Amino acid sequence: MSKQIKYQPLPSENIPRYADIATFMRLPHVDIANADQVDIGLIGVPWDSGTTNRPGARHGPRQVRDMSALMRRYHPVLDISPYELVNCVDLGDSPVNPINLNDALAGIERFYGQVIDKQITPLSCGGDHLTSLPILRALAKRHGPLGMVQFDAHTDTWDSYFGGNKFTHGTPFKRAIEEGVLDPKRYVQIGIRGGLYDKNDFQWQQQQGVTMFSIDDCFSQGLDQILEQANQIIGNDASYVTFDIDCLDPVFAPGTGTPEIGGFNSYDVQKMIRLLRGRNIVGADMVEVSPPFDSSGGTALIGATVLFELLCIMAENLS
Amino acid sequence: MSKQIKYQPLPSENIPRYADIATFMRLPHVDIANADQVDIGLIGVPWDSGTTNRPGARHGPRQVRDMSALMRRYHPVLDISPYELVNCVDLGDSPVNPINLNDALAGIERFYGQVIDKQITPLSCGGDHLTSLPILRALAKRHGPLGMVQFDAHTDTWDSYFGGNKFTHGTPFKRAIEEGVLDPKRYVQIGIRGGLYDKNDFQWQQQQGVTMFSIDDCFSQGLDQILEQANQIIGNDASYVTFDIDCLDPVFAPGTGTPEIGGFNSYDVQKMIRLLRGRNIVGADMVEVSPPFDSSGGTALIGATVLFELLCIMAENLS
Amino acid sequence: MSKQIKYQPLPSENIPRYADIATFMRLPHVDIANADQVDIGLIGVPWDSGTTNRPGARHGPRQVRDMSALMRRYHPVLDISPYELVNCVDLGDSPVNPINLNDALAGIERFYGQVIDKQITPLSCGGDHLTSLPILRALAKRHGPLGMVQFDAHTDTWDSYFGGNKFTHGTPFKRAIEEGVLDPKRYVQIGIRGGLYDKNDFQWQQQQGVTMFSIDDCFSQGLDQILEQANQIIGNDASYVTFDIDCLDPVFAPGTGTPEIGGFNSYDVQKMIRLLRGRNIVGADMVEVSPPFDSSGGTALIGATVLFELLCIMAENLS
Amino acid sequence: MSKQIKYQPLPSENIPRYADIATFMRLPHVDIANADQVDIGLIGVPWDSGTTNRPGARHGPRQVRDMSALMRRYHPVLDISPYELVNCVDLGDSPVNPINLNDALAGIERFYGQVIDKQITPLSCGGDHLTSLPILRALAKRHGPLGMVQFDAHTDTWDSYFGGNKFTHGTPFKRAIEEGVLDPKRYVQIGIRGGLYDKNDFQWQQQQGVTMFSIDDCFSQGLDQILEQANQIIGNDASYVTFDIDCLDPVFAPGTGTPEIGGFNSYDVQKMIRLLRGRNIVGADMVEVSPPFDSSGGTALIGATVLFELLCIMAENLS
Amino acid sequence: MSKQIKYQPLPSENIPRYADIATFMRLPHVDIANADQVDIGLIGVPWDSGTTNRPGARHGPRQVRDMSALMRRYHPVLDISPYELVNCVDLGDSPVNPINLNDALAGIERFYGQVIDKQITPLSCGGDHLTSLPILRALAKRHGPLGMVQFDAHTDTWDSYFGGNKFTHGTPFKRAIEEGVLDPKRYVQIGIRGGLYDKNDFQWQQQQGVTMFSIDDCFSQGLDQILEQANQIIGNDASYVTFDIDCLDPVFAPGTGTPEIGGFNSYDVQKMIRLLRGRNIVGADMVEVSPPFDSSGGTALIGATVLFELLCIMAENLS
Amino acid sequence: MSKQIKYQPLPSENIPRYADIATFMRLPHVDIANADQVDIGLIGVPWDSGTTNRPGARHGPRQVRDMSALMRRYHPVLDISPYELVNCVDLGDSPVNPINLNDALAGIERFYGQVIDKQITPLSCGGDHLTSLPILRALAKRHGPLGMVQFDAHTDTWDSYFGGNKFTHGTPFKRAIEEGVLDPKRYVQIGIRGGLYDKNDFQWQQQQGVTMFSIDDCFSQGLDQILEQANQIIGNDASYVTFDIDCLDPVFAPGTGTPEIGGFNSYDVQKMIRLLRGRNIVGADMVEVSPPFDSSGGTALIGATVLFELLCIMAENLS
Repeated sequence: MSKQIKYQPLPSENIPRYADIATFMRLPHVDIANADQVDIGLIGVPWDSGTTNRPGARHGPRQVRDMSALMRRYHPVLDISPYELVNCVDLGDSPVNPINLNDALAGIERFYGQVIDKQITPLSCGGDHLTSLPILRALAKRHGPLGMVQFDAHTDTWDSYFGGNKFTHGTPFKRAIEEGVLDPKRYVQIGIRGGLYDKNDFQWQQQQGVTMFSIDDCFSQGLDQILEQANQIIGNDASYVTFDIDCLDPVFAPGTGTPEIGGFNSYDVQKMIRLLRGRNIVGADMVEVSPPFDSSGGTALIGATVLFELLCIMAENLS
Repeated sequence: MSKQIKYQPLPSENIPRYADIATFMRLPHVDIANADQVDIGLIGVPWDSGTTNRPGARHGPRQVRDMSALMRRYHPVLDISPYELVNCVDLGDSPVNPINLNDALAGIERFYGQVIDKQITPLSCGGDHLTSLPILRALAKRHGPLGMVQFDAHTDTWDSYFGGNKFTHGTPFKRAIEEGVLDPKRYVQIGIRGGLYDKNDFQWQQQQGVTMFSIDDCFSQGLDQILEQANQIIGNDASYVTFDIDCLDPVFAPGTGTPEIGGFNSYDVQKMIRLLRGRNIVGADMVEVSPPFDSSGGTALIGATVLFELLCIMAENLS
Repeated sequence: MSKQIKYQPLPSENIPRYADIATFMRLPHVDIANADQVDIGLIGVPWDSGTTNRPGARHGPRQVRDMSALMRRYHPVLDISPYELVNCVDLGDSPVNPINLNDALAGIERFYGQVIDKQITPLSCGGDHLTSLPILRALAKRHGPLGMVQFDAHTDTWDSYFGGNKFTHGTPFKRAIEEGVLDPKRYVQIGIRGGLYDKNDFQWQQQQGVTMFSIDDCFSQGLDQILEQANQIIGNDASYVTFDIDCLDPVFAPGTGTPEIGGFNSYDVQKMIRLLRGRNIVGADMVEVSPPFDSSGGTALIGATVLFELLCIMAENLS
Repeated sequence: MSKQIKYQPLPSENIPRYADIATFMRLPHVDIANADQVDIGLIGVPWDSGTTNRPGARHGPRQVRDMSALMRRYHPVLDISPYELVNCVDLGDSPVNPINLNDALAGIERFYGQVIDKQITPLSCGGDHLTSLPILRALAKRHGPLGMVQFDAHTDTWDSYFGGNKFTHGTPFKRAIEEGVLDPKRYVQIGIRGGLYDKNDFQWQQQQGVTMFSIDDCFSQGLDQILEQANQIIGNDASYVTFDIDCLDPVFAPGTGTPEIGGFNSYDVQKMIRLLRGRNIVGADMVEVSPPFDSSGGTALIGATVLFELLCIMAENLS
Repeated sequence: MSKQIKYQPLPSENIPRYADIATFMRLPHVDIANADQVDIGLIGVPWDSGTTNRPGARHGPRQVRDMSALMRRYHPVLDISPYELVNCVDLGDSPVNPINLNDALAGIERFYGQVIDKQITPLSCGGDHLTSLPILRALAKRHGPLGMVQFDAHTDTWDSYFGGNKFTHGTPFKRAIEEGVLDPKRYVQIGIRGGLYDKNDFQWQQQQGVTMFSIDDCFSQGLDQILEQANQIIGNDASYVTFDIDCLDPVFAPGTGTPEIGGFNSYDVQKMIRLLRGRNIVGADMVEVSPPFDSSGGTALIGATVLFELLCIMAENLS
Repeated sequence: MSKQIKYQPLPSENIPRYADIATFMRLPHVDIANADQVDIGLIGVPWDSGTTNRPGARHGPRQVRDMSALMRRYHPVLDISPYELVNCVDLGDSPVNPINLNDALAGIERFYGQVIDKQITPLSCGGDHLTSLPILRALAKRHGPLGMVQFDAHTDTWDSYFGGNKFTHGTPFKRAIEEGVLDPKRYVQIGIRGGLYDKNDFQWQQQQGVTMFSIDDCFSQGLDQILEQANQIIGNDASYVTFDIDCLDPVFAPGTGTPEIGGFNSYDVQKMIRLLRGRNIVGADMVEVSPPFDSSGGTALIGATVLFELLCIMAENLS
């Protein structure tokens, strides 16, 4: 890293973790206008207008920032010190609009356009899963249709809700495929489970060539083998990682809007992300942490740790 | 009451209060299609798309139904047995749409049109405060511009939010006045407090002739005197009562989206509603109970009791 | 106090309040068999088989013991140091039986017989309000029919529940009057409120000569005047004080089974108990703290403080 | 399914899951008097008088109804659409009595007698585990002594508590064997763990021929093999499934009365129930969800999902 | 205000209150090194090493920052727009040390020395009440012995704890008087209540000339009269305001370490602070908010509002 | 066991588990002065002055005592009835000092000196992990340098915090090795995970010969093999077991100060402790349960069960 400025998190051995203003990973807060030396930008997207059931993911970024103070600087399993490799900062929150869905979608896409124009790799914290759509749009302008690994209990490729409404947190990836920003052949879903509305709910995405690994696949084949297949599917081209916190069992992540029992534990998700090491990840997000449903912060702690795991492999990839 | 069917709540001295399916006041659930013998319809409006800060009021009706099982049949202070006077039922929930604000506003108005067409007086449970707007629209079609008593920490007569969005839970009564469904001269607000965005926030409503009693007015003049004035202002014509749970101090009503400290206690609000006895109340609502911020149900218990207090004076008025 | 043993609470200025095994007021735990030098015995009655709605008061004594560690030794408003005046200990819990109601009633009465035989004045912590009945029975054997001040939202003089069951937490004082252990002419209820099952619910007790002050009486006449009347009604003969935590507003005492909004605040109840100073109180209880509905301990803290207030006036009376 | 009426749950893609009155699975509420076209009846038994430690299971059915709104219509792993196969409804709650244990046992048995007389297969939601006894009695009248698979941390075959009390939630299955309604040779327990009162606690049931798989057996042999044995033991004759939520680890099911650490996770229990597919299940229950110990609803969500899993295999069996 | 830079909070009508990094009042975070244009500095002191019972106040500043997002810009009762009058910022947190009490006391004093050297008036958020001592030391260097209004349940003028330890949250103001940084003749305590360790606990401070108003004084004389006396006692010279959140009743402020029932409600404290208008306040703090004991944020919301009330009168005083 | 007194826990089949004063395992509370017939002493150490982040472990012993009432008398997996083998009691709490770290360290060491002088094997409940240091010092006086098995997410062998402070809960075992009370060659750590401050954080302990098994080692090699190695490393000489509750995944143990995701589940820890059977364990502790972060008691229930598992193998070893 040969930047003039070297951004570093507050040192927890001198300044206690509970002290000072909460930013992602205790990193400096740098405005997008001043972010010329930034490699990876952590960004909050406090928005949940796509939520069909229990709202609250709009409060996610603030609680994740708070709990991320527990992260340290060096990852001993991966042997990575991300802040030595690249410049990471907290870019603050994307503009949002809780009242006007279309305005919000446009505003988020515009903000990420600025981020990408500055050559910053975005690592985002939602927000509900609809937030991934404008981010994918912005990234695809630079990279073309993206590959994607999605950790999730649900496919989020339904068509519409409540009388034809096309933009919800259950539909972003059908839209992304239709719009050509997501390449269905290089798109893999991991951890899918739970009841369906209809026997044919998975039909459309199968026809597009999307690969789905159910939770039963994951537990019967083993996570190593699933991730090996996932890595082959996305290949070496520009890919995105989207991590819905509800891929975890609800006992690990009660603070979310659409819990499905029988999911991953926290070690599983750490292991899976580490196995994505070496992929060409041009952006990632962790979404659907809903603090009103977990005021303890336990869900957000997993969210913060997932962001740190992603940050490590993204930093290594960029360096 | 000379109806063929007499609807009665489940008897708590035989069937424990925690038993059976939760309806408002343990009343029968009657579909609007079969509601020909109903005088007062308790209706849920599980919708919070107008919320500018902390969401969750969409979950209000279900929790209020649960806590309303604690209500009994006879009000000893008012000496009213509402279920002896008129036929009361739970009409279920109004149609809503969490994704499409305009569709929801239209759907709610349409549903209340059906209710009013059946000569049913609606007593509603929100939902956020924007839910009052379509109800007022439906009622005004029959009654003309309504008088209104609003118990609230906030006036909810702001103009717009987040770049000109006109329909939020902070703006319903500006819209209602502009649309002519609410008569500003017969509109009184009680309990207003908290900081403002701007020194001139109250200017518009003052110009329209709205009467506002701040919490300081209430505590310095006494509640009897405030309500006497309120009753004079709304007079004997058709009036609406809207009760925002945040008129209570947040320690009494933590389960709400926009708490303001320094509010009413629960005895205050019981007392005030009882002083509305004898008014010509053609509809009422209790809004902004947000269960994710009070899983204990304490806020909803107050909400349920407020609904029972309103029900008593409305039943007496109709009988 | 000329006892050989002088029982004292653990000193909080040396041993932190959170330390050591939790007993009432940090007093020594003395078995009834060894309690020959005891003047006032604090006793838990962990039993809630009389509960008609939300159970949990069986867990009350343990949580009240925990929170009572916050009490100190000297009451500056009353200028009383109870532990200097009389010997106070924690006698542990009365035997109970969660499965067999009749066995429990008999066992509690038997235990309190032993306590009273040792000339110990009992200060009890319930349990639900049915626990007062066997205690009154045991006390009446020595003192004859007792006077009583009851702080409560409910009269608890109903006749029966669920098909003629006579022993519930809604019926103890009808039983006590019928059995002649409670003198209805010297029995006063303070704080009654909430809906009723029937217009005539109060008829029976009025016919017996019971005095009832509703919460409206209390707030309109003032607490000083209400307590002055109460003191006159119970007079100078042997009297009991029973304090149902639900006399407080549910926001102060959420941890209880039958909350009724619009009740006392914590200063009100402190004030009222202090006004009972000088009465001939031969026993007292504080009941209906239900920890599962308030894991924060706030309700139990009020319960513990109420016990300390009662202890002070009882100690002065005995000394 | 050739019924005249086809009962269907509310469609979540049109009516949000949090909307409308909470019934099991959002199914219609049909009174037993009108249940002539019903195949499977979901029934609440809000009763916990058999509880020896922490009460609250009486509140179970209401919270499970609330959380069951998250269930969808099609089970993709089993490839079953239960509501297409048979008619399922919410039959409301069984009569109960929180004050009189014997009256409650009789009332529950009587109610299930009516259900069975209408050829309805009962799928019940407790309540504590003593609720299974009157249900077994009613079922055995038709089917003779039943086989049973019990998922539980405890055998619940103890003899008596607190001085010879025979009817508690720790004793139902000793009673059921003694009464001849449960066939000990076709009775298998899965997940037993935790300390015992005495070294010989298991002796009696072993002598009767009951098969017990401890949690250690389950984890060392694997769930497939355990369930294979269980299926052989119950065979093809009429059998019952009783699912005590405390078979799960307390971190998954904190809302219960007698937690034992070291239990199943939520995926384990889904897997085990699915392996019961094809058995001749004439009734099932899920018991011991105690909402006061888990206001988050997480325990109840598992309970609701367990009911849906059972419903699927029961519907297939009946069709 | 003729500064070159005008610091303003984020506008909530454009950027939702839950969005962006949480600073006090949504004000800019300015490092002390760059704070040359600052008039009032909001400062966190995340430190609770002086706590004798329940810890956690170290987490106070972060939660208060979060909840302070609910504050708006204009105070309609006082008719003050603080951010128009003076430059206010969030100065971040003072250095602290959770392991070494003496090091922390020295570090806090040093940091406040810097603040005062820059002519910044400090408005602080604790931390436990011992944090006030180093702040008073730093302020007294400039202003000499200070007058002080203390809102508190406890005098905090005890001598020592646990074997002669002089520096705890129960002793700061005995130390401050002994050190000559606090003028006992101009020192008034408001809201004192609760039991004492000893009958003579108040003796020392009375001898120094400290004025104490118990909660009984407050409620019997009325708050207007108490504050009038308080204003006379502190006079027009440099004074400090210290607000211990436990002056409020624990039901309003459960998130604190030493709750005493029978305290102020939230309206009382707003009223009292407003009556300090016009005093020469050279610094103020709000202390003892302990988030682990109130994860709901309700206590912190009161703390944040108290800070805003103090900010308004301090801003007016400076302008 | 040939003692004159035989200490037994309260029998839960007669006295309900929620009844009576809470001691560890419902055992008699015996003062150290009267403990001449005691073999194993359960001791609370309510102290957390070494905590660098979230405090509260000082409240651990009381909550663990409460939850330990759920333990029974016989361990069916190990086939051990500890109370038949040796005399076990609750010795109450060690003296502590929340204000003065050095005084507390000295006082704890002195108290354990008394315990060991009476030939009592201590089984302790913290408190934070710094409490282990004075216990090790006291034990090493009798036994020389101890072997140790540490279950933990963190090594706790860091050097110092916040400017050279040597005594924190992150440093006890570096101190213990330096002081010669812990033999690094016979010291094994199990479950280590989470980020580090620096790449070389483990260097010092490796140089001393400490054996560390990371959580990845545990999950990839299997717990049987890890414990077999651990048993070889500590050998047959006097050894200590220290169990930090944060070795469990935070979802199992949210009530702790430094949660790290990806840890053990509750079955894992039961299994591992059982595999220590037969070792020469001269003392053990379970630390870092912090009730303010888990008011549900779930963390404390695991802590209580871990103490019972340890008690069983220690009792067998002594008998």
